Amino acid sequence: MRLVVVGGVAAGLSAAARARRIDASLEITVIERGPEISYGACGLPYYIEGQVRDLRELIAFTPERFERERNIAVRANAAAEAIRHSRRQVLLAGGEAVPYDRLVIATGARPAGGRIEGALQPHVFKLHTLEDARRLREFLLEKRPRRGAAVGAGYIGLDTAGALRAHGLGVSVVDSGVGVLGRQDPELTEVVAEQLKRFHIEVHLGVNVQAVEPDRVAGIACDLVVLAAGLEPETALAREAGIETGRTGAIRVSERMETNLPGVYAAGDCAEALNLVTGRPDWLPLGTTANKMGRVAGANAAGRRERFPGIVGTSIVRICGLGFGFTGLSAAQARREGFNPVAARIRGLDRPRYFEGRQVTAELVADRATGRLLGGTVTGFEGLEGRVNVIAAALSRRMTVEEFAMLDLAYAPPYAPVWDPLLIAAQQLEKLLH
Amino acid sequence: MRLVVVGGVAAGLSAAARARRIDASLEITVIERGPEISYGACGLPYYIEGQVRDLRELIAFTPERFERERNIAVRANAAAEAIRHSRRQVLLAGGEAVPYDRLVIATGARPAGGRIEGALQPHVFKLHTLEDARRLREFLLEKRPRRGAAVGAGYIGLDTAGALRAHGLGVSVVDSGVGVLGRQDPELTEVVAEQLKRFHIEVHLGVNVQAVEPDRVAGIACDLVVLAAGLEPETALAREAGIETGRTGAIRVSERMETNLPGVYAAGDCAEALNLVTGRPDWLPLGTTANKMGRVAGANAAGRRERFPGIVGTSIVRICGLGFGFTGLSAAQARREGFNPVAARIRGLDRPRYFEGRQVTAELVADRATGRLLGGTVTGFEGLEGRVNVIAAALSRRMTVEEFAMLDLAYAPPYAPVWDPLLIAAQQLEKLLH
Repeated sequence: MRLVVVGGVAAGLSAAARARRIDASLEITVIERGPEISYGACGLPYYIEGQVRDLRELIAFTPERFERERNIAVRANAAAEAIRHSRRQVLLAGGEAVPYDRLVIATGARPAGGRIEGALQPHVFKLHTLEDARRLREFLLEKRPRRGAAVGAGYIGLDTAGALRAHGLGVSVVDSGVGVLGRQDPELTEVVAEQLKRFHIEVHLGVNVQAVEPDRVAGIACDLVVLAAGLEPETALAREAGIETGRTGAIRVSERMETNLPGVYAAGDCAEALNLVTGRPDWLPLGTTANKMGRVAGANAAGRRERFPGIVGTSIVRICGLGFGFTGLSAAQARREGFNPVAARIRGLDRPRYFEGRQVTAELVADRATGRLLGGTVTGFEGLEGRVNVIAAALSRRMTVEEFAMLDLAYAPPYAPVWDPLLIAAQQLEKLLH
Repeated sequence: MRLVVVGGVAAGLSAAARARRIDASLEITVIERGPEISYGACGLPYYIEGQVRDLRELIAFTPERFERERNIAVRANAAAEAIRHSRRQVLLAGGEAVPYDRLVIATGARPAGGRIEGALQPHVFKLHTLEDARRLREFLLEKRPRRGAAVGAGYIGLDTAGALRAHGLGVSVVDSGVGVLGRQDPELTEVVAEQLKRFHIEVHLGVNVQAVEPDRVAGIACDLVVLAAGLEPETALAREAGIETGRTGAIRVSERMETNLPGVYAAGDCAEALNLVTGRPDWLPLGTTANKMGRVAGANAAGRRERFPGIVGTSIVRICGLGFGFTGLSAAQARREGFNPVAARIRGLDRPRYFEGRQVTAELVADRATGRLLGGTVTGFEGLEGRVNVIAAALSRRMTVEEFAMLDLAYAPPYAPVWDPLLIAAQQLEKLLH
């Protein structure tokens, strides 16, 4: 049986590798538009910054190694132009037809906002592929720009702003929305903006960028621009083949990652995932989710019956040394989803004071009607990923605030205070619920 | 209405403070045998080591401050000698009778193994109270002992061994059991012993200490001995008043922290808690649990109806710089509880390699019959408390390994690898379950 996977980054390679582990006899081919596969795009800003010294550190597998070690054919630099499902073929640019019995579509996402005028100037960059990062870093080191602007206040925009600042540039961040990190959360937006300001990075929200001029963007003088106005699912190939997308614009899939075409699966940033908090399909393109969806798609394509239960929307980012993590819904998002949200926010220490405890803030959001936890945000320096993950685990199982407040969390002076900030926040929230 | 609380450390003060917050009109009295209240005994080894410079850093409230700020009478240095429940009185040494309408017993735990011969010599110490810590540190600095022995390989014994080593002493740890940290876990015992060895701390397991000689213990030459052979619940006062204890030896309580006597509650290290993994009453004396039980006891004593759902057995300790955390059951414990356990153990990195990822090990234990997660152990340098807490949250809600493997955990290069070690361990465990 022939399995073809379109897309060779997170979801695609997870699918191919998983299918191989399940069935050694499958003929598996991965088709990847770019020259490289299996890279961690989340690491690109750290290459710009210098923490990652060589882009090869971001590549888990070269095509050659993947072929050799996994016995999976990799067609790099090969653009899939069409899916002819009636004949079970993927057509490549150049006319070659690659036959399949099962197909996994993992075409990912692409930078949104493609219609910005002046985007092709040499001082204007995206940060989506390894090649983008190579070009940007080269420009930085060779041209020594003095002022940079990031268009977009998502992860990539904010991470890149921090990286440019570390190179000594004056930096501005511009975003058309009213909040940062794609989350409707005025509190979060405020603390992120404060942190950026502390590092002399200006933030301009509610500014719609239509064009990049040679020496400025949105009226801000700059000689380097990074366009990072979010992502959109790459679904053209699928849609043209008659594969349905959902209300988010991404490919609609079952919990087995099946599309509406038999034998055709979709996974990763091109596909929707069930949001376990709202109970509705959602689209939050992240490498972690892509890998999980890919694993499930690969398993099912190889004949297993596995399911991807869904996501709760967990994210974390470090901005100029301070960490911001969140999961589930903010109060504003919860309200929009029809909940009656109530939120409690506390400041505490991540460890006892005598163990150099540093400030942490924790916010929890719950539904007033049911007492169910809906989301949370944690900011701090250390241990915040663990705290966000505890909230994520609780959301997965629809825990109430009452249950959450009684979690048996670890305590020892080098690691946490005896009352973890999460539990204190939950106690505060319980008071508001009663 | 008069509320009397016997015991002024974690559970007792949590109960008193909570009752006060709920009912401003209660007359509340806390009776504490020792001179101090509200101290963090887990911090004592860090005072020995020097990380805590002043014992006052371990005291959250002085009796005076607690009285003033909470309007709660504190009787320090007052020994409760008997409970005369028929008259609703606590009798103090000296004969005074303190009347109550509601009573919370929070008498805590005391060092076990009191019958060791030679325990009263000046070079032999416990580490249970602030006064113990004061005496031990004074001895260390004044007498300059050269070789120390910790009798007991629990938290206090191991923490103290590390603290003595930091002062330059040769150190041995002796324990009568076959495992460390009160957990039946040969793997854990091995890695803890390896870590201690790396710091030139000898470990002697299976050695029963009956006596401390003037210059040696269990044949090991030493001029300083710390007795830390575990704890036992302090229940004499309760038992003499007709309060029932359970099979663990601690006071039997309902989920509302009620004892068998009406209006009498028990909380903290003197009481049992429901183990949510085994479904049976358990006794794991820890400050975190004591605080939660105290809160619930205080709320119910003040007329609310609250419940303490139970514990999963979460612990964490840092030994010579390396962290060991665990929760739920080890494989051996699970077997003894009637499960058919299967375990997977993996080594991974706590962050991407290019972000100075350091080694972490994660072990998960599940029940073969149901696929239910039963416990886990994490060792590492950073982020292990969060990973243990995620397992703890999963255990609280009886998550299966399949569900656990799909948790939406946070990823960003400064915090975690894209596949968290927990998820990799869960994937390995899933393979063993199928």
